[in-house]
Amino acid sequence: MSKKGNLLIGQSGGATAVINSSLAGAISEALTNDKVGEIYGMLEGVQGLLNERIVDLRAQVGTPAALEHLKRTPSAALGMCRLKLGEAETERVLKILQKHNIRYFIYIGGNDSADTCHRLAMLAKAEGYALFAIGIPKTIDNDLPDMDHCPGYGSIARYIAQATRDTTIDTAAAAVVHPVKLLEVMGRNAGWVAASAAMARVREDDPPHLIYTPERGLNPDDFLRDVKRTYALYGYCVAVIGETVKDQYGKPLSGRGEPYFVDSFGHRYYQGPASYLTGLVMKELGLTSRFDKPGTLQRMSMNCVSEVDLEEAWLVGTEGVRLAISEQSDLMVTIQRVNAPNEEYAITTGTTPLLNVAHSERKMPADYINSAGNNVTQAFLDYAKPLIGSPILDYFHFDKTRLVAKK
Amino acid sequence: MSKKGNLLIGQSGGATAVINSSLAGAISEALTNDKVGEIYGMLEGVQGLLNERIVDLRAQVGTPAALEHLKRTPSAALGMCRLKLGEAETERVLKILQKHNIRYFIYIGGNDSADTCHRLAMLAKAEGYALFAIGIPKTIDNDLPDMDHCPGYGSIARYIAQATRDTTIDTAAAAVVHPVKLLEVMGRNAGWVAASAAMARVREDDPPHLIYTPERGLNPDDFLRDVKRTYALYGYCVAVIGETVKDQYGKPLSGRGEPYFVDSFGHRYYQGPASYLTGLVMKELGLTSRFDKPGTLQRMSMNCVSEVDLEEAWLVGTEGVRLAISEQSDLMVTIQRVNAPNEEYAITTGTTPLLNVAHSERKMPADYINSAGNNVTQAFLDYAKPLIGSPILDYFHFDKTRLVAKK
Repeated sequence: MSKKGNLLIGQSGGATAVINSSLAGAISEALTNDKVGEIYGMLEGVQGLLNERIVDLRAQVGTPAALEHLKRTPSAALGMCRLKLGEAETERVLKILQKHNIRYFIYIGGNDSADTCHRLAMLAKAEGYALFAIGIPKTIDNDLPDMDHCPGYGSIARYIAQATRDTTIDTAAAAVVHPVKLLEVMGRNAGWVAASAAMARVREDDPPHLIYTPERGLNPDDFLRDVKRTYALYGYCVAVIGETVKDQYGKPLSGRGEPYFVDSFGHRYYQGPASYLTGLVMKELGLTSRFDKPGTLQRMSMNCVSEVDLEEAWLVGTEGVRLAISEQSDLMVTIQRVNAPNEEYAITTGTTPLLNVAHSERKMPADYINSAGNNVTQAFLDYAKPLIGSPILDYFHFDKTRLVAKK
Repeated sequence: MSKKGNLLIGQSGGATAVINSSLAGAISEALTNDKVGEIYGMLEGVQGLLNERIVDLRAQVGTPAALEHLKRTPSAALGMCRLKLGEAETERVLKILQKHNIRYFIYIGGNDSADTCHRLAMLAKAEGYALFAIGIPKTIDNDLPDMDHCPGYGSIARYIAQATRDTTIDTAAAAVVHPVKLLEVMGRNAGWVAASAAMARVREDDPPHLIYTPERGLNPDDFLRDVKRTYALYGYCVAVIGETVKDQYGKPLSGRGEPYFVDSFGHRYYQGPASYLTGLVMKELGLTSRFDKPGTLQRMSMNCVSEVDLEEAWLVGTEGVRLAISEQSDLMVTIQRVNAPNEEYAITTGTTPLLNVAHSERKMPADYINSAGNNVTQAFLDYAKPLIGSPILDYFHFDKTRLVAKK
């Protein structure tokens, strides 16, 4: 290979609040290394790359001030795609890399991006082209294997904890009007995001009273019993529901109720489970119920970013470039927790083969969910608390049991 | 009346991010005036008062530090209700006030609260009981008459502007996957909240591309044409929809699509319009579409509070107490803008009869909405910009037209 190789970096899959921090970290590292020639970014991941949609990162974001601005911008600044490369497309991508003398290929994403990155690494090796392809982890779902947690998770966890505290204080205030509130959150097939709502608690019996994760089936009868009991105890109820929670038969709860759209093939599109469960509470318990569904806002809020997450995302970005330049390939950077329990939180980076990441997902361990399947355990809180950074906003509460004597 | 009178304050109606700032301001003012004896708060507004659910505010929040904490706590710390007092209930409330020697009655709320406060003032006058009843304005809907704007609006406007910028940057990044995004927002019968999304713009043609307010009917065919044209121009489309937007026949758009719940009386409960319109875009235009519906989170976020709004809410709280102590009654405090156009933003407080507030609502003036009914005008932006406080988060953007030469 020529003395200097060019570097190409892209972003893929659903965006997070900190995916640009990884991009900025990677660029920052590349700028300091004289083995790197051009520093390029692909627009819309490999989908844009197939059309040679490439920008010059040194020219557009080559100053520390610009990198700092990029770092604090949520979402994928280069754009993303969800394209899985087939054989022919992988060959076309490799040809484009060769034409631009790309030697360092950095792809920030999750499982599918790891698959893409792995295929490229394999093909380059088979064709004798020296390409060093490294994946940088990114997902709010926190479900990539072989790592303690994923960049992006700490920030959505912080958002959900704060949103839960906010929606709780609203529901508590409005208990005589609409005493039941559901918060529907993201998380693919794992409950990590829903579980993070528990960090809204100050005391053990604070809301959210109920947390339902996709790892455990939810029998709607059990749900109604939980809500009824909670309402009887506290006069209101706040429940957090993962959007992919299934019923006791393994069918998505979102598939109950009416579809909001049926396409010409007869495919039925449903609301998430919260609208169905909200209706159920009103019908079966006669309690006015509302739901909040922050949608993409939850994974995109720089106002709620975890500073811990933001810095770790930068770190794995720098590490990915270091690995590529030291001519390692077909790996994803990982984050490993190195402190002992009760010691101060500390991490280091590691690596795992891209192939491991491409084909597995990490659900919540059984001991992070309580036996009733309607809440999380202290073990989960111990795991997650350091990831959200500084404490979320603390609120004032009146003691509503200290009443002035009646006259 | 005895030399010292007691003061009672309550909160009513949907909560805001700054309703506790008005409460804290009022308490702070009452603490400094020696005409005031006890300083009491009613729990759950007049609904709690009917059960003498009263707390001692001097005891629970009588220090500057506690007041500052209360000020920065969203939602109604005393709890709220939506009870409109009938004749018999008004008499019962007045008897309770008399037993506790309440002479200053402060009620923070909107139209219905003004009605309650007015009825009490009238009855007290008729019965010869010296009661000074003052309303303090509060509503995110910004639709109370006789004032420039309402406390609570600046903060939800800031939240919506920030959320629009966040959801836009997500949609722009994901344009090749799901290019159409709808954001469904609150606002009762007026479009003030939906309109605030326009403050997400940096340049004139920035998203949100489309804003639909309840003041104007929305023909779904026009909506589809708007989305199609925007997508053709920019490759993606962000539209903001007030949750009460109606179709061209005056029927709520939320009533299209399928109800998510039908109660035993046959009343049908619908999603807001975004789910229906999302389905329509997918069906008619073949474009993948998503929607975000932040629900109560939008009116409850201290992370997105407008410092201007927070301080004004405090100010009207202090002013309400001042008016009551100076033995004025049956009035609501108002905010009036006193700067000339192009001068620095400045306000003062005023008053309006409670009866005016009880029975009217203020919609957006026609010149704040563009002729097509799908966006707002510069006149609206000039009105609203000062209310959201400091600029919202600014983000980094690549110039995606400056591509590296293809090889």
